Amino acid sequence: MAATIERVTIIGTGLIGGSVGLSLRSAGYTGQIIGWDHSPVELSIALERGAITAIHDDPYEACIGSDVIVLAVPVLGILDWMHRAKNLIGPGTLLTDVGSTKAAIMETAERLYSFEPGQPARAEFLGGHPMAGKESGGAALADGELFRGATWIFTPMASRAGLPSPLSDAWRQWVQKFGCRTMDIDAARHDVICAWVSHLPQMLSTALSALLEDEFGDAEDMRAIGGRALREMTRLGASPYSMWRDVALSNTQPLADTLSALEQRLAHLRENLKTPELREEFIKANCFRAPRV
Amino acid sequence: MAATIERVTIIGTGLIGGSVGLSLRSAGYTGQIIGWDHSPVELSIALERGAITAIHDDPYEACIGSDVIVLAVPVLGILDWMHRAKNLIGPGTLLTDVGSTKAAIMETAERLYSFEPGQPARAEFLGGHPMAGKESGGAALADGELFRGATWIFTPMASRAGLPSPLSDAWRQWVQKFGCRTMDIDAARHDVICAWVSHLPQMLSTALSALLEDEFGDAEDMRAIGGRALREMTRLGASPYSMWRDVALSNTQPLADTLSALEQRLAHLRENLKTPELREEFIKANCFRAPRV
Repeated sequence: MAATIERVTIIGTGLIGGSVGLSLRSAGYTGQIIGWDHSPVELSIALERGAITAIHDDPYEACIGSDVIVLAVPVLGILDWMHRAKNLIGPGTLLTDVGSTKAAIMETAERLYSFEPGQPARAEFLGGHPMAGKESGGAALADGELFRGATWIFTPMASRAGLPSPLSDAWRQWVQKFGCRTMDIDAARHDVICAWVSHLPQMLSTALSALLEDEFGDAEDMRAIGGRALREMTRLGASPYSMWRDVALSNTQPLADTLSALEQRLAHLRENLKTPELREEFIKANCFRAPRV
Repeated sequence: MAATIERVTIIGTGLIGGSVGLSLRSAGYTGQIIGWDHSPVELSIALERGAITAIHDDPYEACIGSDVIVLAVPVLGILDWMHRAKNLIGPGTLLTDVGSTKAAIMETAERLYSFEPGQPARAEFLGGHPMAGKESGGAALADGELFRGATWIFTPMASRAGLPSPLSDAWRQWVQKFGCRTMDIDAARHDVICAWVSHLPQMLSTALSALLEDEFGDAEDMRAIGGRALREMTRLGASPYSMWRDVALSNTQPLADTLSALEQRLAHLRENLKTPELREEFIKANCFRAPRV
Protein backbone atom coordinates (compact mmCIF):
# COMPACT_ATOMS: atom_id res chain seq x y z
CA MET A 1 0.00 0.00 0.00
CA ALA A 2 1.31 3.42 -0.89
CA ALA A 3 1.82 6.15 1.68
CA THR A 4 0.64 9.73 1.20
CA ILE A 5 3.38 12.21 0.35
CA GLU A 6 2.71 15.65 1.78
CA ARG A 7 6.09 17.29 1.73
CA VAL A 8 8.89 16.89 -0.80
CA THR A 9 12.35 18.45 -0.68
CA ILE A 10 14.27 18.95 -3.90
CA ILE A 11 18.01 19.41 -3.47
CA GLY A 12 19.25 21.07 -6.65
CA THR A 13 16.56 23.07 -8.45
CA GLY A 14 18.14 23.17 -11.91
CA LEU A 15 16.78 21.60 -15.09
CA ILE A 16 15.97 18.18 -13.65
CA GLY A 17 15.11 19.18 -10.09
CA GLY A 18 12.96 22.05 -11.37
CA SER A 19 11.24 19.74 -13.83
CA VAL A 20 10.47 17.29 -11.01
CA GLY A 21 8.76 20.10 -9.11
CA LEU A 22 6.80 21.28 -12.14
CA SER A 23 5.82 17.70 -13.00
CA LEU A 24 4.55 17.10 -9.47
CA ARG A 25 2.40 20.20 -9.76
CA SER A 26 1.11 19.26 -13.25
CA ALA A 27 0.29 15.79 -11.96
CA GLY A 28 -1.91 17.20 -9.22
CA TYR A 29 0.41 17.19 -6.22
CA THR A 30 -0.81 19.84 -3.78
CA GLY A 31 1.64 19.41 -0.90
CA GLN A 32 4.70 21.44 -0.06
CA ILE A 33 7.82 21.42 -2.23
CA ILE A 34 10.87 22.76 -0.41
CA GLY A 35 13.80 23.70 -2.61
CA TRP A 36 17.47 24.19 -1.98
CA ASP A 37 20.22 25.01 -4.45
CA HIS A 38 23.77 26.23 -4.03
CA SER A 39 22.84 29.01 -6.44
CA PRO A 40 20.37 31.58 -5.03
CA VAL A 41 19.57 32.57 -8.62
CA GLU A 42 18.48 29.08 -9.66
CA LEU A 43 16.51 28.81 -6.46
CA SER A 44 14.58 32.01 -7.02
CA ILE A 45 13.87 31.13 -10.67
CA ALA A 46 12.54 27.76 -9.51
CA LEU A 47 10.30 29.52 -6.97
CA GLU A 48 9.07 32.10 -9.48
CA ARG A 49 8.25 29.38 -11.98
CA GLY A 50 6.29 27.40 -9.40
CA ALA A 51 8.65 24.43 -9.38
CA ILE A 52 8.96 24.78 -5.61
CA THR A 53 6.64 26.30 -3.04
CA ALA A 54 9.22 27.41 -0.48
CA ILE A 55 12.92 28.04 -0.10
CA HIS A 56 15.06 26.99 2.81
CA ASP A 57 18.33 28.81 3.33
CA ASP A 58 19.67 26.03 5.50
CA PRO A 59 20.08 22.94 3.35
CA TYR A 60 19.89 20.60 6.33
CA GLU A 61 16.68 22.07 7.68
CA ALA A 62 15.27 21.80 4.18
CA CYS A 63 15.41 18.03 4.58
CA ILE A 64 13.98 17.62 8.06
CA GLY A 65 10.32 16.66 8.14
CA SER A 66 9.94 15.83 4.46
CA ASP A 67 8.42 12.56 3.29
CA VAL A 68 10.59 12.45 0.19
CA ILE A 69 13.95 14.07 -0.50
CA VAL A 70 14.97 14.17 -4.16
CA LEU A 71 18.69 14.63 -4.76
CA ALA A 72 18.91 16.38 -8.13
CA VAL A 73 22.58 17.43 -8.18
CA PRO A 74 25.48 15.82 -10.09
CA VAL A 75 26.57 12.35 -8.95
CA LEU A 76 29.42 13.36 -6.64
CA GLY A 77 27.08 15.84 -4.99
CA ILE A 78 24.50 13.08 -4.52
CA LEU A 79 27.12 10.93 -2.76
CA ASP A 80 27.92 13.85 -0.43
CA TRP A 81 24.25 14.43 0.32
CA MET A 82 23.68 10.75 1.07
CA HIS A 83 26.28 11.04 3.81
CA ARG A 84 24.93 14.36 5.12
CA ALA A 85 21.30 13.21 5.18
CA LYS A 86 22.06 10.06 7.17
CA ASN A 87 21.97 11.87 10.51
CA LEU A 88 19.03 14.08 9.59
CA ILE A 89 16.44 11.56 8.49
CA GLY A 90 14.95 8.35 9.78
CA PRO A 91 12.55 5.57 8.81
CA GLY A 92 9.66 7.90 7.88
CA THR A 93 11.58 9.38 4.96
CA LEU A 94 12.43 8.26 1.44
CA LEU A 95 15.69 9.48 -0.02
CA THR A 96 15.81 9.19 -3.78
CA ASP A 97 17.91 10.66 -6.58
CA VAL A 98 18.08 11.36 -10.31
CA GLY A 99 21.80 10.70 -10.84
CA SER A 100 23.15 9.66 -14.25
CA THR A 101 25.27 6.78 -12.92
CA LYS A 102 24.07 4.32 -10.34
CA ALA A 103 26.77 1.86 -9.23
CA ALA A 104 28.64 4.25 -6.90
CA ILE A 105 25.36 5.59 -5.54
CA MET A 106 23.91 2.13 -4.81
CA GLU A 107 27.13 0.97 -3.14
CA THR A 108 26.89 3.99 -0.86
CA ALA A 109 23.19 3.32 -0.29
CA GLU A 110 23.90 -0.23 0.86
CA ARG A 111 26.56 1.06 3.26
CA LEU A 112 24.43 3.87 4.72
CA TYR A 113 20.77 2.90 4.33
CA SER A 114 20.65 -0.88 4.26
CA PHE A 115 18.03 -2.78 6.17
CA GLU A 116 19.58 -4.95 8.84
CA PRO A 117 17.31 -7.15 10.94
CA GLY A 118 17.64 -6.33 14.63
CA GLN A 119 19.21 -2.91 13.95
CA PRO A 120 17.35 0.41 14.29
CA ALA A 121 15.35 1.17 11.14
CA ARG A 122 16.87 3.68 8.75
CA ALA A 123 15.51 5.96 6.07
CA GLU A 124 14.74 4.25 2.80
CA PHE A 125 16.84 4.87 -0.31
CA LEU A 126 15.62 4.29 -3.86
CA GLY A 127 17.97 5.00 -6.76
CA GLY A 128 16.41 6.73 -9.75
CA HIS A 129 17.37 8.05 -13.19
CA PRO A 130 14.95 9.75 -15.56
CA MET A 131 16.16 9.27 -19.15
CA ALA A 132 15.42 12.83 -20.21
CA GLY A 133 17.39 16.03 -20.39
CA LYS A 134 18.51 18.90 -22.54
CA GLU A 135 21.93 19.99 -23.73
CA SER A 136 21.72 23.03 -21.44
CA GLY A 137 20.81 23.14 -17.77
CA GLY A 138 19.14 25.54 -15.38
CA ALA A 139 15.79 26.18 -13.72
CA ALA A 140 14.76 28.52 -16.54
CA LEU A 141 14.59 25.50 -18.89
CA ALA A 142 12.74 23.27 -16.40
CA ASP A 143 9.61 21.81 -17.92
CA GLY A 144 6.64 19.98 -16.43
CA GLU A 145 6.46 17.88 -19.61
CA LEU A 146 10.17 16.98 -19.74
CA PHE A 147 9.60 13.43 -18.51
CA ARG A 148 6.50 12.64 -20.57
CA GLY A 149 7.11 9.53 -22.65
CA ALA A 150 10.55 8.97 -21.09
CA THR A 151 11.74 5.95 -19.14
CA TRP A 152 12.40 6.60 -15.44
CA ILE A 153 14.75 3.94 -14.21
CA PHE A 154 14.77 2.70 -10.63
CA THR A 155 17.62 0.81 -8.99
CA PRO A 156 16.17 -0.53 -5.73
CA MET A 157 18.43 -1.60 -2.87
CA ALA A 158 19.16 -5.33 -2.88
CA SER A 159 18.99 -5.48 0.91
CA ARG A 160 15.42 -4.18 0.88
CA ALA A 161 14.09 -6.60 -1.75
CA GLY A 162 10.69 -7.94 -0.70
CA LEU A 163 10.24 -5.50 2.18
CA PRO A 164 7.15 -3.29 2.13
CA SER A 165 8.04 0.26 1.15
CA PRO A 166 4.92 2.42 1.07
CA LEU A 167 6.87 5.64 0.47
CA SER A 168 8.70 4.13 -2.51
CA ASP A 169 5.39 2.88 -3.85
CA ALA A 170 3.91 6.37 -3.51
CA TRP A 171 6.91 7.99 -5.22
CA ARG A 172 6.74 5.51 -8.09
CA GLN A 173 3.08 6.39 -8.57
CA TRP A 174 3.92 10.10 -8.86
CA VAL A 175 6.65 9.35 -11.36
CA GLN A 176 4.18 7.40 -13.47
CA LYS A 177 1.84 10.39 -13.31
CA PHE A 178 4.67 12.46 -14.84
CA GLY A 179 4.00 10.39 -17.98
CA CYS A 180 6.98 8.10 -17.47
CA ARG A 181 7.38 4.43 -18.07
CA THR A 182 9.22 3.04 -15.04
CA MET A 183 11.71 0.20 -15.13
CA ASP A 184 13.74 -1.54 -12.44
CA ILE A 185 17.25 -2.53 -13.31
CA ASP A 186 20.46 -3.56 -11.58
CA ALA A 187 22.86 -0.63 -11.01
CA ALA A 188 25.81 -2.23 -12.81
CA ARG A 189 23.73 -3.10 -15.88
CA HIS A 190 22.31 0.45 -15.81
CA ASP A 191 25.79 1.92 -15.91
CA VAL A 192 26.92 -0.28 -18.80
CA ILE A 193 23.81 0.47 -20.87
CA CYS A 194 24.01 4.18 -20.11
CA ALA A 195 27.68 4.20 -21.06
CA TRP A 196 26.61 2.94 -24.49
CA VAL A 197 23.40 4.84 -25.15
CA SER A 198 24.02 8.11 -23.34
CA HIS A 199 27.61 8.71 -22.20
CA LEU A 200 29.31 7.46 -25.38
CA PRO A 201 27.05 9.58 -27.66
CA GLN A 202 27.89 12.60 -25.50
CA MET A 203 31.65 12.04 -25.59
CA LEU A 204 31.49 11.32 -29.31
CA SER A 205 29.64 14.54 -30.01
CA THR A 206 32.06 16.47 -27.80
CA ALA A 207 35.10 14.93 -29.53
CA LEU A 208 33.69 15.55 -33.02
CA SER A 209 32.75 19.15 -32.19
CA ALA A 210 36.14 19.88 -30.63
CA LEU A 211 37.91 18.36 -33.64
CA LEU A 212 35.83 20.44 -36.07
CA GLU A 213 36.54 23.56 -34.04
CA ASP A 214 40.27 22.87 -34.41
CA GLU A 215 39.98 22.07 -38.12
CA PHE A 216 37.61 24.80 -39.25
CA GLY A 217 36.78 27.28 -36.47
CA ASP A 218 34.06 29.36 -38.06
CA ALA A 219 35.10 28.83 -41.70
CA GLU A 220 32.12 30.03 -43.69
CA ASP A 221 32.21 27.37 -46.39
CA MET A 222 32.14 24.56 -43.82
CA ARG A 223 29.22 26.21 -41.99
CA ALA A 224 27.31 26.69 -45.26
CA ILE A 225 27.84 23.12 -46.40
CA GLY A 226 27.07 21.36 -43.12
CA GLY A 227 23.47 20.18 -42.96
CA ARG A 228 21.27 18.07 -40.71
CA ALA A 229 23.85 15.31 -40.24
CA LEU A 230 26.38 17.78 -38.87
CA ARG A 231 23.82 19.53 -36.66
CA GLU A 232 22.58 16.26 -35.17
CA MET A 233 25.98 14.72 -34.60
CA THR A 234 27.31 17.84 -32.86
CA ARG A 235 24.17 18.96 -30.97
CA LEU A 236 25.41 17.44 -27.72
CA GLY A 237 28.71 19.28 -28.23
CA ALA A 238 26.91 22.21 -26.58
CA SER A 239 26.60 20.29 -23.29
CA PRO A 240 28.61 21.88 -20.49
CA TYR A 241 31.47 20.09 -18.76
CA SER A 242 29.76 20.72 -15.42
CA MET A 243 26.94 18.34 -16.41
CA TRP A 244 29.32 15.55 -17.48
CA ARG A 245 32.35 15.69 -15.18
CA ASP A 246 30.74 13.46 -12.57
CA VAL A 247 29.60 10.94 -15.17
CA ALA A 248 33.17 10.62 -16.44
CA LEU A 249 34.44 10.30 -12.86
CA SER A 250 31.82 7.83 -11.62
CA ASN A 251 31.46 5.61 -14.70
CA THR A 252 35.02 5.74 -16.00
CA GLN A 253 35.68 2.11 -16.85
CA PRO A 254 32.40 1.28 -18.63
CA LEU A 255 32.69 4.52 -20.59
CA ALA A 256 36.36 3.93 -21.47
CA ASP A 257 35.42 0.45 -22.70
CA THR A 258 32.78 1.85 -25.07
CA LEU A 259 35.17 4.51 -26.38
CA SER A 260 37.84 1.92 -26.98
CA ALA A 261 35.39 -0.35 -28.82
CA LEU A 262 34.25 2.53 -31.02
CA GLU A 263 37.83 3.56 -31.81
CA GLN A 264 38.49 0.02 -33.02
CA ARG A 265 35.29 -0.08 -35.03
CA LEU A 266 36.12 3.20 -36.77
CA ALA A 267 39.61 1.92 -37.59
CA HIS A 268 38.09 -1.26 -39.02
CA LEU A 269 35.74 0.76 -41.18
CA ARG A 270 38.57 3.08 -42.27
CA GLU A 271 40.68 0.10 -43.35
CA ASN A 272 37.74 -1.26 -45.34
CA LEU A 273 36.51 1.78 -47.24
CA LYS A 274 37.25 -0.04 -50.50
CA THR A 275 36.40 -3.62 -49.52
CA PRO A 276 33.13 -5.60 -49.33
CA GLU A 277 33.46 -5.50 -45.54
CA LEU A 278 32.04 -1.95 -45.70
CA ARG A 279 28.79 -3.42 -46.98
CA GLU A 280 28.65 -5.78 -43.97
CA GLU A 281 28.98 -2.84 -41.60
CA PHE A 282 26.16 -0.98 -43.33
CA ILE A 283 23.93 -4.06 -43.24
CA LYS A 284 24.58 -4.54 -39.53
CA ALA A 285 23.87 -0.85 -38.86
CA ASN A 286 20.65 -1.13 -40.90
CA CYS A 287 19.59 -4.05 -38.66
CA PHE A 288 20.07 -1.92 -35.56
CA ARG A 289 17.81 0.76 -37.00
CA ALA A 290 15.21 -1.57 -38.48
CA PRO A 291 11.81 -1.59 -36.73
CA ARG A 292 11.66 -4.55 -34.32
CA VAL A 293 8.70 -6.90 -34.47
CA MET B 1 22.57 36.46 -70.18
CA ALA B 2 20.75 33.27 -69.34
CA ALA B 3 19.40 30.93 -72.00
CA THR B 4 15.90 29.47 -71.91
CA ILE B 5 15.71 25.85 -70.84
CA GLU B 6 12.90 23.98 -72.58
CA ARG B 7 13.87 20.38 -72.18
CA VAL B 8 15.62 18.71 -69.24
CA THR B 9 16.72 15.08 -68.98
CA ILE B 10 17.13 13.52 -65.56
CA ILE B 11 19.29 10.39 -65.48
CA GLY B 12 18.40 8.56 -62.27
CA THR B 13 14.91 9.37 -61.00
CA GLY B 14 15.36 8.33 -57.36
CA LEU B 15 15.19 10.60 -54.30
CA ILE B 16 17.43 13.38 -55.62
CA GLY B 17 16.61 13.13 -59.33
CA GLY B 18 12.90 12.92 -58.58
CA SER B 19 13.16 15.89 -56.22
CA VAL B 20 14.92 17.91 -58.95
CA GLY B 21 11.97 17.21 -61.27
CA LEU B 22 9.37 18.09 -58.62
CA SER B 23 11.30 21.24 -57.67
CA LEU B 24 11.42 22.36 -61.31
CA ARG B 25 7.66 21.93 -61.53
CA SER B 26 7.03 23.74 -58.21
CA ALA B 27 9.27 26.58 -59.36
CA GLY B 28 7.16 27.10 -62.47
CA TYR B 29 9.11 25.20 -65.12
CA THR B 30 6.69 24.20 -67.86
CA GLY B 31 9.02 22.46 -70.32
CA GLN B 32 9.60 18.76 -70.85
CA ILE B 33 11.35 16.59 -68.26
CA ILE B 34 12.58 13.33 -69.74
CA GLY B 35 13.46 10.66 -67.21
CA TRP B 36 15.57 7.55 -67.35
CA ASP B 37 16.39 5.11 -64.57
CA HIS B 38 17.85 1.62 -64.55
CA SER B 39 14.81 0.62 -62.50
CA PRO B 40 11.50 0.68 -64.41
CA VAL B 41 9.72 0.84 -61.05
CA GLU B 42 11.49 4.04 -59.95
CA LEU B 43 10.87 5.48 -63.37
CA SER B 44 7.13 4.84 -63.27
CA ILE B 45 6.82 6.18 -59.72
CA ALA B 46 8.62 9.35 -60.84
CA LEU B 47 6.22 9.70 -63.78
CA GLU B 48 3.14 9.08 -61.65
CA ARG B 49 4.28 11.64 -59.11
CA GLY B 50 4.86 14.24 -61.81
CA ALA B 51 8.62 14.47 -61.29
CA ILE B 52 9.11 13.75 -65.00
CA THR B 53 6.81 14.32 -67.96
CA ALA B 54 8.02 11.51 -70.21
CA ILE B 55 10.01 8.29 -70.11
CA HIS B 56 12.60 7.19 -72.61
CA ASP B 57 13.42 3.51 -72.79
CA ASP B 58 16.67 4.21 -74.55
CA PRO B 59 18.94 6.08 -72.16
CA TYR B 60 21.00 7.59 -74.99
CA GLU B 61 18.01 8.92 -76.86
CA ALA B 62 16.79 10.39 -73.57
CA CYS B 63 19.77 12.75 -73.71
CA ILE B 64 19.67 13.88 -77.30
CA GLY B 65 18.00 17.23 -77.85
CA SER B 66 17.85 18.30 -74.20
CA ASP B 67 19.14 21.68 -73.05
CA VAL B 68 20.18 20.31 -69.67
CA ILE B 69 21.06 16.78 -68.63
CA VAL B 70 21.13 16.17 -64.87
CA LEU B 71 23.12 13.13 -63.79
CA ALA B 72 21.48 12.02 -60.55
CA VAL B 73 23.06 8.59 -60.06
CA PRO B 74 25.87 7.60 -57.65
CA VAL B 75 29.33 9.01 -58.38
CA LEU B 76 30.76 6.07 -60.33
CA GLY B 77 27.61 6.06 -62.46
CA ILE B 78 28.07 9.79 -63.09
CA LEU B 79 31.63 9.14 -64.32
CA ASP B 80 30.30 6.47 -66.71
CA TRP B 81 27.59 8.78 -68.01
CA MET B 82 30.07 11.60 -68.58
CA HIS B 83 31.94 9.29 -70.95
CA ARG B 84 28.79 8.02 -72.66
CA ALA B 85 27.30 11.48 -73.15
CA LYS B 86 30.42 12.89 -74.80
CA ASN B 87 29.47 11.56 -78.24
CA LEU B 88 25.77 12.34 -77.88
CA ILE B 89 25.82 16.00 -76.98
CA GLY B 90 27.45 19.15 -78.25
CA PRO B 91 27.82 22.86 -77.46
CA GLY B 92 24.07 23.52 -77.10
CA THR B 93 23.80 21.30 -74.06
CA LEU B 94 24.69 21.64 -70.38
CA LEU B 95 25.68 18.48 -68.57
CA THR B 96 25.45 18.82 -64.79
CA ASP B 97 25.31 16.44 -61.83
CA VAL B 98 24.37 16.09 -58.16
CA GLY B 99 27.21 13.79 -57.09
CA SER B 100 28.36 13.68 -53.46
CA THR B 101 32.08 13.91 -54.28
CA LYS B 102 33.51 16.28 -56.83
CA ALA B 103 37.25 15.82 -57.40
CA ALA B 104 37.02 12.69 -59.59
CA ILE B 105 34.09 14.18 -61.49
CA MET B 106 35.83 17.50 -62.18
CA GLU B 107 39.03 15.75 -63.29
CA THR B 108 36.94 13.79 -65.78
CA ALA B 109 35.12 16.96 -66.82
CA GLU B 110 38.41 18.71 -67.63
CA ARG B 111 39.49 15.72 -69.72
CA LEU B 112 36.22 15.35 -71.64
CA TYR B 113 34.51 18.76 -71.69
CA SER B 114 37.26 21.37 -71.42
CA PHE B 115 37.26 24.44 -73.54
CA GLU B 116 40.27 24.55 -75.84
CA PRO B 117 40.72 27.56 -78.11
CA GLY B 118 40.84 26.53 -81.77
CA GLN B 119 39.21 23.15 -81.07
CA PRO B 120 35.57 22.33 -81.90
CA ALA B 121 33.27 23.51 -79.11
CA ARG B 122 32.03 20.89 -76.69
CA ALA B 123 29.05 20.55 -74.38
CA GLU B 124 29.37 22.47 -71.13
CA PHE B 125 29.82 20.69 -67.81
CA LEU B 126 28.96 22.20 -64.42
CA GLY B 127 29.55 20.16 -61.28
CA GLY B 128 26.82 20.38 -58.66
CA HIS B 129 25.97 18.99 -55.22
CA PRO B 130 22.79 19.83 -53.32
CA MET B 131 23.42 19.46 -49.57
CA ALA B 132 20.13 17.74 -48.88
CA GLY B 133 18.97 14.16 -48.64
CA LYS B 134 17.27 11.57 -46.53
CA GLU B 135 18.47 8.35 -44.94
CA SER B 136 16.40 6.36 -47.43
CA GLY B 137 16.26 6.75 -51.18
CA GLY B 138 13.74 6.24 -53.97
CA ALA B 139 11.33 8.23 -56.12
CA ALA B 140 8.51 7.63 -53.63
CA LEU B 141 10.32 9.90 -51.14
CA ALA B 142 11.14 12.58 -53.70
CA ASP B 143 9.98 16.00 -52.56
CA GLY B 144 9.64 19.33 -54.33
CA GLU B 145 10.63 21.04 -51.07
CA LEU B 146 13.70 18.89 -50.35
CA PHE B 147 16.15 21.58 -51.41
CA ARG B 148 14.42 24.55 -49.74
CA GLY B 149 16.86 26.28 -47.41
CA ALA B 150 19.73 23.99 -48.42
CA THR B 151 23.03 24.97 -49.99
CA TRP B 152 23.50 23.81 -53.60
CA ILE B 153 27.20 23.74 -54.32
CA PHE B 154 28.63 24.32 -57.77
CA THR B 155 32.13 23.34 -58.85
CA PRO B 156 32.64 25.11 -62.19
CA MET B 157 35.33 23.94 -64.62
CA ALA B 158 38.58 25.86 -64.26
CA SER B 159 39.14 25.84 -68.03
CA ARG B 160 35.83 27.64 -68.60
CA ALA B 161 36.40 30.40 -66.04
CA GLY B 162 35.35 33.75 -67.46
CA LEU B 163 33.65 32.30 -70.53
CA PRO B 164 30.00 33.15 -71.06
CA SER B 165 27.78 30.20 -70.20
CA PRO B 166 24.12 31.12 -70.69
CA LEU B 167 22.91 27.56 -70.03
CA SER B 168 24.79 27.39 -66.73
CA ASP B 169 23.38 30.77 -65.79
CA ALA B 170 19.88 29.55 -66.57
CA TRP B 171 20.36 26.35 -64.57
CA ARG B 172 21.71 28.31 -61.59
CA GLN B 173 18.60 30.48 -61.69
CA TRP B 174 16.33 27.42 -61.53
CA VAL B 175 18.31 26.03 -58.61
CA GLN B 176 17.85 29.31 -56.76
CA LYS B 177 14.12 29.06 -57.44
CA PHE B 178 14.19 25.66 -55.68
CA GLY B 179 14.86 27.73 -52.53
CA CYS B 180 18.58 27.01 -52.46
CA ARG B 181 21.50 29.17 -51.56
CA THR B 182 24.15 28.53 -54.22
CA MET B 183 27.87 28.55 -53.59
CA ASP B 184 30.88 28.01 -55.86
CA ILE B 185 33.78 26.08 -54.44
CA ASP B 186 36.87 24.26 -55.61
CA ALA B 187 36.33 20.50 -56.02
CA ALA B 188 39.18 19.45 -53.72
CA ARG B 189 38.04 21.79 -50.92
CA HIS B 190 34.49 20.50 -51.43
CA ASP B 191 35.62 16.93 -50.93
CA VAL B 192 37.58 17.72 -47.77
CA ILE B 193 34.71 19.69 -46.22
CA CYS B 194 32.17 17.03 -47.18
CA ALA B 195 34.41 14.34 -45.72
CA TRP B 196 34.15 16.19 -42.40
CA VAL B 197 30.56 17.38 -42.34
CA SER B 198 28.78 14.62 -44.25
CA HIS B 199 30.82 11.47 -44.90
CA LEU B 200 32.41 11.24 -41.44
CA PRO B 201 29.03 11.68 -39.64
CA GLN B 202 27.63 8.91 -41.86
CA MET B 203 30.48 6.48 -41.19
CA LEU B 204 30.37 7.32 -37.50
CA SER B 205 26.66 6.62 -37.28
CA THR B 206 27.11 3.38 -39.24
CA ALA B 207 29.99 2.24 -36.99
CA LEU B 208 28.10 3.11 -33.79
CA SER B 209 24.92 1.38 -34.98
CA ALA B 210 26.81 -1.75 -36.09
CA LEU B 211 28.65 -1.87 -32.76
CA LEU B 212 25.41 -1.53 -30.79
CA GLU B 213 23.82 -4.25 -32.91
CA ASP B 214 26.71 -6.56 -31.96
CA GLU B 215 26.60 -5.59 -28.27
CA PHE B 216 22.86 -5.54 -27.69
CA GLY B 217 20.85 -6.72 -30.69
CA ASP B 218 17.30 -5.99 -29.65
CA ALA B 219 17.87 -6.18 -25.87
CA GLU B 220 14.76 -4.60 -24.40
CA ASP B 221 16.43 -2.75 -21.56
CA MET B 222 18.84 -1.01 -23.94
CA ARG B 223 15.98 -0.02 -26.25
CA ALA B 224 13.91 1.29 -23.32
CA ILE B 225 16.76 3.34 -21.90
CA GLY B 226 18.04 4.86 -25.14
CA GLY B 227 16.60 8.30 -25.75
CA ARG B 228 17.07 11.21 -28.13
CA ALA B 229 20.89 11.08 -28.04
CA LEU B 230 20.87 7.47 -29.20
CA ARG B 231 18.23 8.08 -31.87
CA GLU B 232 20.07 11.07 -33.30
CA MET B 233 23.51 9.52 -33.28
CA THR B 234 22.29 6.35 -35.01
CA ARG B 235 19.68 7.84 -37.40
CA LEU B 236 22.08 7.71 -40.34
CA GLY B 237 22.77 4.05 -39.49
CA ALA B 238 19.65 3.37 -41.56
CA SER B 239 21.35 4.65 -44.73
CA PRO B 240 21.88 1.92 -47.31
CA TYR B 241 25.32 0.86 -48.50
CA SER B 242 24.22 1.50 -52.09
CA MET B 243 24.03 5.25 -51.35
CA TRP B 244 27.50 5.37 -49.78
CA ARG B 245 29.68 2.88 -51.62
CA ASP B 246 30.68 5.39 -54.28
CA VAL B 247 31.46 8.08 -51.72
CA ALA B 248 33.83 5.70 -49.94
CA LEU B 249 35.41 4.74 -53.27
CA SER B 250 35.73 8.25 -54.70
CA ASN B 251 36.72 10.17 -51.55
CA THR B 252 38.74 7.50 -49.78
CA GLN B 253 41.76 9.47 -48.61
CA PRO B 254 40.00 12.59 -47.26
CA LEU B 255 37.49 10.34 -45.49
CA ALA B 256 40.18 8.05 -44.07
CA ASP B 257 41.99 11.14 -42.76
CA THR B 258 38.90 12.33 -40.89
CA LEU B 259 38.28 8.86 -39.42
CA SER B 260 41.86 8.62 -38.29
CA ALA B 261 41.70 12.07 -36.68
CA LEU B 262 38.50 11.16 -34.84
CA GLU B 263 39.93 7.86 -33.61
CA GLN B 264 42.84 9.78 -32.10
CA ARG B 265 40.55 12.36 -30.57
CA LEU B 266 38.38 9.70 -28.94
CA ALA B 267 41.49 7.99 -27.56
CA HIS B 268 42.68 11.32 -26.17
CA LEU B 269 39.34 11.88 -24.49
CA ARG B 270 39.29 8.30 -23.16
CA GLU B 271 42.74 8.77 -21.60
CA ASN B 272 41.58 12.00 -19.96
CA LEU B 273 38.22 11.03 -18.45
CA LYS B 274 39.61 11.88 -15.02
CA THR B 275 41.87 14.83 -15.87
CA PRO B 276 41.26 18.57 -16.40
CA GLU B 277 41.92 18.01 -20.12
CA LEU B 278 38.33 16.73 -20.38
CA ARG B 279 37.14 20.23 -19.49
CA GLU B 280 39.25 21.69 -22.33
CA GLU B 281 37.59 19.34 -24.81
CA PHE B 282 34.12 20.33 -23.62
CA ILE B 283 34.99 24.03 -23.83
CA LYS B 284 36.31 23.62 -27.37
CA ALA B 285 33.19 21.67 -28.37
CA ASN B 286 31.02 24.39 -26.79
CA CYS B 287 32.83 26.96 -28.97
CA PHE B 288 32.00 24.99 -32.10
CA ARG B 289 28.31 25.00 -31.19
CA ALA B 290 28.15 28.58 -29.93
CA PRO B 291 26.22 31.03 -32.15
CA ARG B 292 28.68 32.94 -34.34
CA VAL B 293 28.52 36.71 -34.49
